[in-house]
Amino acid sequence: MTKKRPLILVTNDDGITAPGIRTLIEIMNEIGEVVVVAPDSPQSAMGHAITINSTLHCEQIKVADGPQIEYSCSGTPADCVKLAVNELLDRTPDLCVSGINHGSNSSINVIYSGTMSAAMEAGIEGIPAIGFSLLDFNWNADFSQIKSFVKQITIEALTNGIPKDVVLNVNFPKLKENEIKGIKICRQAKANWVEKFDKRTNPMGREYYWLTGTFVNEDKGEDTDEWALNEGYVSIVPTQFDLTAHHSIQQLNTWNL
Amino acid sequence: MTKKRPLILVTNDDGITAPGIRTLIEIMNEIGEVVVVAPDSPQSAMGHAITINSTLHCEQIKVADGPQIEYSCSGTPADCVKLAVNELLDRTPDLCVSGINHGSNSSINVIYSGTMSAAMEAGIEGIPAIGFSLLDFNWNADFSQIKSFVKQITIEALTNGIPKDVVLNVNFPKLKENEIKGIKICRQAKANWVEKFDKRTNPMGREYYWLTGTFVNEDKGEDTDEWALNEGYVSIVPTQFDLTAHHSIQQLNTWNL
Repeated sequence: MTKKRPLILVTNDDGITAPGIRTLIEIMNEIGEVVVVAPDSPQSAMGHAITINSTLHCEQIKVADGPQIEYSCSGTPADCVKLAVNELLDRTPDLCVSGINHGSNSSINVIYSGTMSAAMEAGIEGIPAIGFSLLDFNWNADFSQIKSFVKQITIEALTNGIPKDVVLNVNFPKLKENEIKGIKICRQAKANWVEKFDKRTNPMGREYYWLTGTFVNEDKGEDTDEWALNEGYVSIVPTQFDLTAHHSIQQLNTWNL
Repeated sequence: MTKKRPLILVTNDDGITAPGIRTLIEIMNEIGEVVVVAPDSPQSAMGHAITINSTLHCEQIKVADGPQIEYSCSGTPADCVKLAVNELLDRTPDLCVSGINHGSNSSINVIYSGTMSAAMEAGIEGIPAIGFSLLDFNWNADFSQIKSFVKQITIEALTNGIPKDVVLNVNFPKLKENEIKGIKICRQAKANWVEKFDKRTNPMGREYYWLTGTFVNEDKGEDTDEWALNEGYVSIVPTQFDLTAHHSIQQLNTWNL
């Protein structure tokens, strides 16, 4: 007699046809029953946006062979999770995995990340959740190098249980499998983007901007995700959606309010 | 000789013409030099979305009389702050205020909030920042009842300094000024939305959904923003953008990774 296989919800922010999510689906098919509910178009840098002033469409489709059930949705990554959990699935998933993102969601990138917003949304709904990201922006990034790590982390999460109200933010260095040194539990590095706007003039003479920027890490700690990734490790940052800066409450209570 | 007046950046997510931001501009004109950089259209529930795959437009305009300088931008609230700080302003603002939002950003709403994402973006850039929200979704909400509180909190923030890497999330109950009992420093309540999708069929026979939901607060603590607001207080939650769940790192280090 076999134990019932876990129900795994798979989503992402690069869209349902992205190679990253296709790899993630392949891996999850080896672990459980897979339902994919993912955006029909790229939703990178959508943060935790949700669709409240417009309608949502959702179609059952089949992008690739395999036992997974797949839905393509018009909304944001957070919308996809809400739709899956509250409308499409007939039972609560045992796990939600998001990604594999084409590009980093380490350090402050977690705030802007559609990949992590989907995982966070699942976490808010009480579902254990993991976001996976590879430090390679290319559409044809080589996800095969990290498959064994994704599987290992997922199985450990199912076996041990993710701590309550915690969502895992997993980032992979762009290395060959045999070059990756291991996995580190980390804190979010205090790094950020120094933006520069590229100002141009369109053919009609109107000015417009492109957002560009340089990533700057002045956090010298050896317990951060940036440190781990630079040293060739996979980073796992446990993240939370209680944003309260508890340590500052006492100080604010001294204000004259 | 008068002390140099602080430079205050004002933004929001309801758009530059919303009554909430117009009230906020009026109040800030009494305190400092005001530059407004706000979205040209409503951006509610945009979370921390930023515009990376499209261009941004920005025009200097004048929506209403007053000494403030105003820019209307095509992007999200976070885009507006990035543009202001890195392109439009010639010095770093002393304070960024966002709002006054038409509707609550208490408890888990902070995650979806465009108002708070703008304030967070300023915080990430090292600028002291406050998001203000009134628990009234109406366009014609009565912001005059809370003007004295907004002014008091802003002056206290400029006088004492907001703790480093902390952004204030201020919510006001929908009450008359003389009914408001005072101001409480709070933690984010552990409350969330129970979603329900309203499924309909369009005139072409295609199904679509509207996201709807009920807000459920099962957090009985008397130190939360929800408690304070229900009791008739203004709530101030200090929030942070280090999402690390530091308390769970030890537990995750017991996993077989």
